[in-house]
Amino acid sequence: MVRLAVDEVVQSGQIIGLSPEHQHYLAAVMRRQEGDPIEVLSVGGLVFRAVILLGATALRVTEQMGRAWKPRRHITLYQALLKGDHFSEVVDRASQAGVSLIVPIVTDRTIVRDVRPQRENRWRAIAKEASEQSQRASILEIGPCTLLKEVALLDGSKGFVLHPHPAKGHHSKKPWLEADANPVALLVGPEGGFSADEVSYLEQKQFEPLSLGPSVYRSENAGAFASVLFLQ
Amino acid sequence: MVRLAVDEVVQSGQIIGLSPEHQHYLAAVMRRQEGDPIEVLSVGGLVFRAVILLGATALRVTEQMGRAWKPRRHITLYQALLKGDHFSEVVDRASQAGVSLIVPIVTDRTIVRDVRPQRENRWRAIAKEASEQSQRASILEIGPCTLLKEVALLDGSKGFVLHPHPAKGHHSKKPWLEADANPVALLVGPEGGFSADEVSYLEQKQFEPLSLGPSVYRSENAGAFASVLFLQ
Repeated sequence: MVRLAVDEVVQSGQIIGLSPEHQHYLAAVMRRQEGDPIEVLSVGGLVFRAVILLGATALRVTEQMGRAWKPRRHITLYQALLKGDHFSEVVDRASQAGVSLIVPIVTDRTIVRDVRPQRENRWRAIAKEASEQSQRASILEIGPCTLLKEVALLDGSKGFVLHPHPAKGHHSKKPWLEADANPVALLVGPEGGFSADEVSYLEQKQFEPLSLGPSVYRSENAGAFASVLFLQ
Repeated sequence: MVRLAVDEVVQSGQIIGLSPEHQHYLAAVMRRQEGDPIEVLSVGGLVFRAVILLGATALRVTEQMGRAWKPRRHITLYQALLKGDHFSEVVDRASQAGVSLIVPIVTDRTIVRDVRPQRENRWRAIAKEASEQSQRASILEIGPCTLLKEVALLDGSKGFVLHPHPAKGHHSKKPWLEADANPVALLVGPEGGFSADEVSYLEQKQFEPLSLGPSVYRSENAGAFASVLFLQ
């Protein structure tokens, strides 16, 4: 069933006008038409049944179905900016994996150093569509572009730097198997790695190096793969 | 470090001519040149240091470094063919996640029903590059396109059908946490789901329904995400 997330609190019986993006998605991408059933995700995480009206420009909400799922813990993914359109792939996979917040970061060795508004809008559109498809209760949030040295852990959360080649001994740690549901911050650095300054900053801020196993994952995959483990 | 997989058994001191694809990858993609160090993965899983020669058309192997990693269990991913180029994404992610063999399948409701040789060649090229990058000992293999009703489990292996919405009770099963390293077969069906005939065929062949949690993953992600769990 197709599910659309709307920006308002929904009630049974309500008629909701659709955004041009949702109209296009329903008619051109999903080939739905007037009279077809659909699901609506309300602000707050409730899910409703609805029917498409008026040539797919609006919906009538019929009844409440239940509550959408929430990830069992809050994951923030700090990800160094990537060349080309690869950050979009990160946003897409992170939305599907259940990450709550993604923060693009700039490091000493990041090649891309700023984000144009159009690009950020594109990421938000991708996050919305991929989050809707995964049927989660809220859309992946995208934070403002941040310098690595402004990243800090919130109280009660644990931070991990995803290293393709950590020092010996890190391979055997599997912190995702711990039973707690504390928030987790994951950090994926640039291809060129961190500067010595940054490594000591991260140590001081209590970020621990973590390996997901012997495989060397691409930057586009590392955060999503780690999140799947932490949300199992 | 860049690592290339060659189709021969490598020895120290050997000079190896590079394929046009490897030459292009080294020079144009990775910007490496004569005299730069590189790693070579031999048939059999040994890794060697080498140096680029002759304008990046060949390598001289200098010394053995060690053995590349192998996934801790053999995973076969049976994946229904997908429209457009989406199967390439599956091949890319499965290579990174550590899947050993991927088999494209045709089901009653699969829209794409055959594979052109060019497309299969493209998948092989993607599998090679993504496997090299992950530094695994062998390249993801791509099996021949197979009808769902010819799929069967090998002795000693377990089979799971990845269901976005399995019956109640399946959510709590986490077979990936079992300590054994038995081979696993994962099956990702088409968007339209399986026919009743196919469901009873799969039951008879001992494939169990499995959910990875409450999220509905896209077909392109489901197999890779499940494999990350089974290989942790």
